[in-house]
Amino acid sequence: MRWREPPAIYFEDYGSPVERSSYLIELNTNDGGSYDVINDASSPAAGDCCAQQSSARHNWEMNYQEAAIYLQEGENNDKFFTHPKNAKALAAYLFAHNHLFYLMELSTALLLLLLSLCEAPAVPMLRLGIFVHATLELFALIVVVFELSMKMRWLGFQTFIRHKRTMVKTCVLFVQFIEAIVVLVRQTSHVRITRALRCIFLVDCRYCGAVRRNLRQIFQSLPPFIDILLLLLFFMVIFAILGFYLFSPNHSDPYFNTLENSLVNLFVLLTTSNFPDVMMPSYARNPWSCVFFIVYLSIELYFIMNLLLAVVFDTFNDIEKRKFKSLLLHKRTAIQHAYRLLITKQRPSGISFKHFEGLLRFYKPRMCARERYLTFKALNQSNTPLVSLKDFYNFYEVVGLKWKAKRNREHWFDDLPRTAFLIFKGINILVKSRVFQYTMYTVVAVNGIWILVETFMLQGGNFFSRNVPWSYIVFLTIYGVELLLKTTGLGPVEYLSSGWNLFDFSVTLFAFLGLMALAFNMEPFYFIVVLRPLQLLRLFKLKKRYRNVLDTMFELFPRMASLGLTLLIFYYCFAIVGMEFFAGVVYPNCCNTSTVADSYRWVNHTVGNKTVVEEGYYYLNNFDNILNSFVTLFELTVVNDWYIIMEGVTSQTTHWSRLYFMIFYIVTMVVMTIIVAFILDAFVFRMNYTRKNQDSEEDNGIVLEKEISKEEVVGIIELYKRSSAATETAQLQKIILQMDKYGQMSTVFLGRRSRTKSDLSMKMYEEEIQEWYEEHSRKEESQTPLQEPASASNSSLKPLSLRQRSQTVI
Amino acid sequence: MRWREPPAIYFEDYGSPVERSSYLIELNTNDGGSYDVINDASSPAAGDCCAQQSSARHNWEMNYQEAAIYLQEGENNDKFFTHPKNAKALAAYLFAHNHLFYLMELSTALLLLLLSLCEAPAVPMLRLGIFVHATLELFALIVVVFELSMKMRWLGFQTFIRHKRTMVKTCVLFVQFIEAIVVLVRQTSHVRITRALRCIFLVDCRYCGAVRRNLRQIFQSLPPFIDILLLLLFFMVIFAILGFYLFSPNHSDPYFNTLENSLVNLFVLLTTSNFPDVMMPSYARNPWSCVFFIVYLSIELYFIMNLLLAVVFDTFNDIEKRKFKSLLLHKRTAIQHAYRLLITKQRPSGISFKHFEGLLRFYKPRMCARERYLTFKALNQSNTPLVSLKDFYNFYEVVGLKWKAKRNREHWFDDLPRTAFLIFKGINILVKSRVFQYTMYTVVAVNGIWILVETFMLQGGNFFSRNVPWSYIVFLTIYGVELLLKTTGLGPVEYLSSGWNLFDFSVTLFAFLGLMALAFNMEPFYFIVVLRPLQLLRLFKLKKRYRNVLDTMFELFPRMASLGLTLLIFYYCFAIVGMEFFAGVVYPNCCNTSTVADSYRWVNHTVGNKTVVEEGYYYLNNFDNILNSFVTLFELTVVNDWYIIMEGVTSQTTHWSRLYFMIFYIVTMVVMTIIVAFILDAFVFRMNYTRKNQDSEEDNGIVLEKEISKEEVVGIIELYKRSSAATETAQLQKIILQMDKYGQMSTVFLGRRSRTKSDLSMKMYEEEIQEWYEEHSRKEESQTPLQEPASASNSSLKPLSLRQRSQTVI
Repeated sequence: MRWREPPAIYFEDYGSPVERSSYLIELNTNDGGSYDVINDASSPAAGDCCAQQSSARHNWEMNYQEAAIYLQEGENNDKFFTHPKNAKALAAYLFAHNHLFYLMELSTALLLLLLSLCEAPAVPMLRLGIFVHATLELFALIVVVFELSMKMRWLGFQTFIRHKRTMVKTCVLFVQFIEAIVVLVRQTSHVRITRALRCIFLVDCRYCGAVRRNLRQIFQSLPPFIDILLLLLFFMVIFAILGFYLFSPNHSDPYFNTLENSLVNLFVLLTTSNFPDVMMPSYARNPWSCVFFIVYLSIELYFIMNLLLAVVFDTFNDIEKRKFKSLLLHKRTAIQHAYRLLITKQRPSGISFKHFEGLLRFYKPRMCARERYLTFKALNQSNTPLVSLKDFYNFYEVVGLKWKAKRNREHWFDDLPRTAFLIFKGINILVKSRVFQYTMYTVVAVNGIWILVETFMLQGGNFFSRNVPWSYIVFLTIYGVELLLKTTGLGPVEYLSSGWNLFDFSVTLFAFLGLMALAFNMEPFYFIVVLRPLQLLRLFKLKKRYRNVLDTMFELFPRMASLGLTLLIFYYCFAIVGMEFFAGVVYPNCCNTSTVADSYRWVNHTVGNKTVVEEGYYYLNNFDNILNSFVTLFELTVVNDWYIIMEGVTSQTTHWSRLYFMIFYIVTMVVMTIIVAFILDAFVFRMNYTRKNQDSEEDNGIVLEKEISKEEVVGIIELYKRSSAATETAQLQKIILQMDKYGQMSTVFLGRRSRTKSDLSMKMYEEEIQEWYEEHSRKEESQTPLQEPASASNSSLKPLSLRQRSQTVI
Repeated sequence: MRWREPPAIYFEDYGSPVERSSYLIELNTNDGGSYDVINDASSPAAGDCCAQQSSARHNWEMNYQEAAIYLQEGENNDKFFTHPKNAKALAAYLFAHNHLFYLMELSTALLLLLLSLCEAPAVPMLRLGIFVHATLELFALIVVVFELSMKMRWLGFQTFIRHKRTMVKTCVLFVQFIEAIVVLVRQTSHVRITRALRCIFLVDCRYCGAVRRNLRQIFQSLPPFIDILLLLLFFMVIFAILGFYLFSPNHSDPYFNTLENSLVNLFVLLTTSNFPDVMMPSYARNPWSCVFFIVYLSIELYFIMNLLLAVVFDTFNDIEKRKFKSLLLHKRTAIQHAYRLLITKQRPSGISFKHFEGLLRFYKPRMCARERYLTFKALNQSNTPLVSLKDFYNFYEVVGLKWKAKRNREHWFDDLPRTAFLIFKGINILVKSRVFQYTMYTVVAVNGIWILVETFMLQGGNFFSRNVPWSYIVFLTIYGVELLLKTTGLGPVEYLSSGWNLFDFSVTLFAFLGLMALAFNMEPFYFIVVLRPLQLLRLFKLKKRYRNVLDTMFELFPRMASLGLTLLIFYYCFAIVGMEFFAGVVYPNCCNTSTVADSYRWVNHTVGNKTVVEEGYYYLNNFDNILNSFVTLFELTVVNDWYIIMEGVTSQTTHWSRLYFMIFYIVTMVVMTIIVAFILDAFVFRMNYTRKNQDSEEDNGIVLEKEISKEEVVGIIELYKRSSAATETAQLQKIILQMDKYGQMSTVFLGRRSRTKSDLSMKMYEEEIQEWYEEHSRKEESQTPLQEPASASNSSLKPLSLRQRSQTVI
């Protein structure tokens, strides 16, 4: 009925919005109700029609912008109470929300962090004068002040105070500022542990959202973690008392002679790092004393530590699900807010393309006209000219799609002359055959064995001075031919669209570069030669499980990277504290009085006519500059022999230094347990997903197909012509030309994007999601009158979409 | 209708069974159909009625026995193809299936295993002459032969051959026999690695069913495990080649000078056991070489090892579910088999109490008459005199219940005189009050801090020579008073029925014994004194999470113990192999030429007038006898510094010894990963369960309530009188006396048992279970005509129960 109108709907006037952008309320406060009156006149009649139209357009632009901001907030999980509330705030918001500003934020944060490379215990090559680095610091801090003031302008003072993270940042900034000035005035660095707080500038960056989420998740997992940790420590204390009673009568046992030693050694034993040494003196005296240690390790290491993992894993699972739920509902609310700003009073049941296009201009400025229309069509499942709220809820899933015209040609060489076609077709069939694939696998395997045997034969010596071995050339030729065949057979575009082929390509390229380096004796590039064994990775395509594992790995990579960054932030804090307290305390032969003297020894004695160097090397694990500290902290993370580092430092400082190392161990234990829980969760989730959807074959992400007819394109061109958007018109004209060339009346476009964890979760929790939605809308209905009296239309949104659906049915 | 008959049903004749026990087919083959004919005459009329009845009773006894065997097979997950098929097999089956026989099996297996304490590299105190231990071994093996021959008699030769485990056992037995004879003839032990196979005798024991299941689960988890292991080893090889190329030019680096060393050291690095030492020489030369190690550890240790856990965890989960399913269906089939043997032609819709009682006499001979009837009543949900198949399916859930008369008195002192009652009531209220509880917690906490401080003050010296400290007496008095109050307030039975109280009781008892030991200077019991801190464990009652954890721990204990035993079996195999190859190779100062010389050094040099002993102690980690081997293997399991043990042994034997240690590492990694997966799975399952059933309060196991009226008891007494079972009659008479005493017409009984994992799974997979059942019955219907032509009535079982239900409704 009403929905069967011709595409003429595109040429309609703007109509008046159901709800006006909050930015207009202030600006147009003088023209009162006239705005509505003017626009309610649906036919342009008077002479000032143009002026009216342009005012209406301006007002609509504001609506578009605010809707786009809502959608962005939904995407980034920004709470709505930070939503810019008036035109002034909007200007600040726009200033503070673009990649240039984000980059500035990131680079000042990085600058501040990197300063510790040059400050007091500096990396030798990067040492800077106090004046230089303090000035740099002040400069960076001033930039941060500027950023914060922009944020305050946008948030308003009230919200600014309420926003915890920003407040913490402000306090840290204040402290840093004072300290930087003090350093500059005194021209000498004092003990600045507060430098460890610099990380907060990085964490607060827009680009580090994932790190923030990780930190939140870590803190949320803490309460159950601490419970179990207490259990662990409790047993440790009990065993320490027992151990002290049992073993201190043995005077040759240095591990249990005092209660403190007993405690420390059992703590270290928990990490297994001093086992079996800690057992040996008592074991030598009485073999049955091993029971004490076996029982202790069984309870603490094999039971409670696993319990810890179980508890964290469980909490992690639960948090992941709750997080997914709240994100989903937040996005939904954002969509509702945006929707209200885009519907007109004349047509309250949906968004027309005109308004949708206006929204996308602000939401994704880079999108071309064709893509905007395709997104609109993809959303619009009811085939009416308007997108209902129900359809609009899919906005985030659809807007990320990359659209491409479906190709009519099967191969890239279909248009070539007959002979060439046949040749390429032959190559194509060959390349796709299993025989070819397995031949290549065999070649790779032989190559692998060859490299292994070759390396095994080479016992020491300088490997690179020789000529290029013939085997290298042979294998490289084979790979080159394979690459050539595949590129010609499949076409370069199709060839490189597969990740595995890309990997093959780059490995072969590296091998070729290695050959060049060998052939022309380019010393610094020799390392490329050793990358040859990477070819063997290709063998892992063979088995489905490996493909699954590697696919999951790539899917998880961003998340893993953010977890790694989170760990680095903890490292940074500990490195700063370590440098402030322990810089320079460890050096060769420093700890000759301690129990770990051997590891720090550096003796250069002469036996006969030969000098023998006896090196313990552990003095290299120090906190002398930030890079060394990072390496030392990594060694502490790996845990093995960490007590040697701890005892070394302790023997040069006080007993209390042990606290630093123990706290570091516990913190890394938390983070590591969470990383393990994350990997476990991700893989188990993925495997469950695969098991649940066994029927659906290997998925290539999410694909959507949409057909566009010529008339539609003409319609949109008209629309753009009216708003005199020349580039868009030209783009669309090209599509019509293309259609004319192939004599088609319509073109099919494919929208593609890779599958994200959120898509998987959507499918896994399918049933529950409906419940959440219902619960959410119920809650909102009851809350709306209290919280947002202005948007009373909110609760009527749901019935609207229902009404529309029933109309479509009629 | 038909079901509303008076209890007279108990006095009915046996009736003729729908299906005869297979043992009768052979025995009664001469009397042909007469059996049915006789029993079809439902009223005893002729003079030979008694003889007929007794024959019928004998035949029914056979049916009961076979049904009981079916149910046992269902419970133990014995496959039905090992079901004894005729009377001869039955005799052998009965002989081989009782606790005496099981104990014999277990003790011979243990004897064989323990022999290795006394054989060639024997524990010094237990050394036996070759003649003695070889004779013992032969004796044990002969017992095993006897056991196997009984099994063969029962299984029949055909099935015996088909039963894999038994066949393997036979082969091992054969080899062991020959070897034992050879040892006895030569009077000297040869290299007997096959002794490692002795474990199979233990694994095959009836009591070690859990170990068998664990082993099966481990083997089922292997394929995915091996896949990921290959990935791990693959990266190791790639990095070994890279490391060799990068670091072998550095001559001060002993870790990468050959490809073999490079591989071995990266393998050890995977266990982190040689980190950071392995990095130090190259790190000292070029700081950036740490990147190699960081990347290696990140990929191998932090990623792939966790992946391993994820894959095993996932497979484990899946196997657990499948195992639960197959067990459930197996039990169901067993119940169906038993049911067919217990219904009569006259009443094909259910089992009467008479037959049910007959079954229980064989299935659980220890059950008293009252419990049998209560079990029957608990099963019989439709309140008809017959138990339908549908009800009978709950057999395993109900038969484990322990029945007790519900007490009418609230407290044990209700019957006492008024004054005493008031006193005890006061104590009861006091003991149950929160104030009392928290006071006790405070006392325990103060005691804990006291012990800690006291121990801290005592720095070394002989602690036990002093007098009894007064604090000990004070605290012990408080605990004693608490114990007394609680016992009197709650009554001894109720007090000891809680696990936590039991724990309090035993700890207080130990503390008291410790006091005695101190007071009377009993030297050997001093160790009890050090158990005092265990009191602190009581504090963990405070928090719900700890209660949950500890409850789960106790629930899991049997499973954990069986996993531990499985690990011990692996230890045993490796210990035997280790002893055969490495016994006596490691001794003080044995390895002065190797890189780990320090750890094996034992120097006794004089400095001034004092002898200083420099001990490396590692020579204690040897394979000189089986106990030492076990300790050494535990140290290898803990992994830290295991390479010192490996290198020590390797330097005294060949390079190939490393294989032993590496294989051991991989095997323990498998077992440990599975233990971790098990703990994870159990706890996550438990926590999910708690989350799913949050409404149901803390559960005290499964509780069922049944009321029995006096008439019913009289009815059963009549029944037993007819079959002249005097003890049962007397028992039941007692119930009537009890009822008369309190003037009741009926008594309520409570059936209780603790919740098992199977119960939890039942609830977790509720929906799926119905699907499984349907699928199973469908499959069976389609299979029955092919596999078991005799039991065509099988497929009619389901409709039967349905028909019965509809009749009940009418």
